[in-house]
Amino acid sequence: MTFSWLKGHGTENDFVLLPDHDGSLHGELDAQFVAALCDRRRGIGADGVLRVITPAALGIDSDAAWFMDYRNADGSISEMCGNGVRVFARHLLEEGLVSDDEFLVGTRDGDKRVVVDGDQIRVDMGDYVTGGTSKVTTAEGATLEAREVHTGNPHAVAFVDDLSSAGALLSEPEFDRSVYPEGVNIEFVARRAHGHVAMRVHERGSGETRSCGTGACAVAIATALADGQDAAAPRYRVDVPGGTVLVDLTSDGHVHLTGPAVIVASGTMEWRA
Amino acid sequence: MTFSWLKGHGTENDFVLLPDHDGSLHGELDAQFVAALCDRRRGIGADGVLRVITPAALGIDSDAAWFMDYRNADGSISEMCGNGVRVFARHLLEEGLVSDDEFLVGTRDGDKRVVVDGDQIRVDMGDYVTGGTSKVTTAEGATLEAREVHTGNPHAVAFVDDLSSAGALLSEPEFDRSVYPEGVNIEFVARRAHGHVAMRVHERGSGETRSCGTGACAVAIATALADGQDAAAPRYRVDVPGGTVLVDLTSDGHVHLTGPAVIVASGTMEWRA
Repeated sequence: MTFSWLKGHGTENDFVLLPDHDGSLHGELDAQFVAALCDRRRGIGADGVLRVITPAALGIDSDAAWFMDYRNADGSISEMCGNGVRVFARHLLEEGLVSDDEFLVGTRDGDKRVVVDGDQIRVDMGDYVTGGTSKVTTAEGATLEAREVHTGNPHAVAFVDDLSSAGALLSEPEFDRSVYPEGVNIEFVARRAHGHVAMRVHERGSGETRSCGTGACAVAIATALADGQDAAAPRYRVDVPGGTVLVDLTSDGHVHLTGPAVIVASGTMEWRA
Repeated sequence: MTFSWLKGHGTENDFVLLPDHDGSLHGELDAQFVAALCDRRRGIGADGVLRVITPAALGIDSDAAWFMDYRNADGSISEMCGNGVRVFARHLLEEGLVSDDEFLVGTRDGDKRVVVDGDQIRVDMGDYVTGGTSKVTTAEGATLEAREVHTGNPHAVAFVDDLSSAGALLSEPEFDRSVYPEGVNIEFVARRAHGHVAMRVHERGSGETRSCGTGACAVAIATALADGQDAAAPRYRVDVPGGTVLVDLTSDGHVHLTGPAVIVASGTMEWRA
């Protein structure tokens, strides 16, 4: 089977893109094929697959011309990916599949408004919910208070003086399952300056990753909450291991994520495995 | 720039192959390009690149029809790779670039004789040298006695009751720099049965890897030495994290490595980064 592919990343969260405009090429997009493609040793290697398809081809109601059919590296379906949607948008623009630099991208979490400004792409990630605090404990035994923030995914955001306090993050920190019955992404945040933080993240099911878009949003939200209404910055810079993103909290209660996205390679592939 | 590529692996030691028969496509094969291609997040991702070229195109004297121009993931040149040469051989056979299933592959460590037998490929890795013992100490503080074996690369082989004794292997174990002035690959070996061992390896400059061909050879040599002339097995099975290889020590003083090698994908690529 021969098909078109591209590879791209946003702050080192990387994806294989599969153009399949009418859905005739990859059909249901087999989970085993996605997992094989994403395997970093036995396949090509990626954090996930972004199928480029129209909403109509999937029978999905959307005002967007293009739908991001996102799959995790294990082949499972995920609703939304903040870094993935930027890479997807970059591809649409580079291929002339959209004519304007402001457009909608359809996702299983609804249509997302995207604005491309040179090497930076801004995505309206929608609204968010904050909760109380609970304890997280690292494998090395450090117990920290963490703020509950929901930005599509559940997050627990713990402030630390130094990011090394998070330890090796080889295993999942302990957390309160009564607060997070479906698991949680855990962020460790260190302040760098006013409106500027750095973070590390342990993603449920994936371990420590180079970047997490919804996690960066959660971190900015928790920081704004800690800063208080009068001292909150108009925009937060969030350094992740794989780069830097910017987070804006707007008066309509939405969180916006801005960051880079690049396509590094494209071509055709015959899958032989 | 558009070029042909393939991806393959041998016991999860993975490579991008670049067909460039007369050397006109990739020229000197820029180290920065190789490193960018091998980056697992910002590129395609691989442990190394195997350029498929004739010896004549590189001005190298060889009896082989094809030369494995091997580059490490950081772009530097390496003489030989025991898993890479099997993947290279698989490609030659699949593409009809060799007509027999026994042939020579040119490498910077000389011509290597390869025999393909179904899914297994056997490579004559040449001769080897054994030395004495010295101490290695893991980050967790376990000090072990390790046998010195040279199989193209220097190796220190330490026997353990349980492979977990090697610890997390996140950092390089301490070793005796008077024995290994240019660094060393360190293998931890556990016996499974007569003629059957399992290993983990810390490769100098790379950290813990899924497989190391010359390391598996060194482990079999050290095990045969420990077994003694009368009890040495005719063949050693060596389980690595990424699979299983077989090692034979022949009466001419050579070590032969046998294992699987598969090409998982092929196609053309436009490199945009």
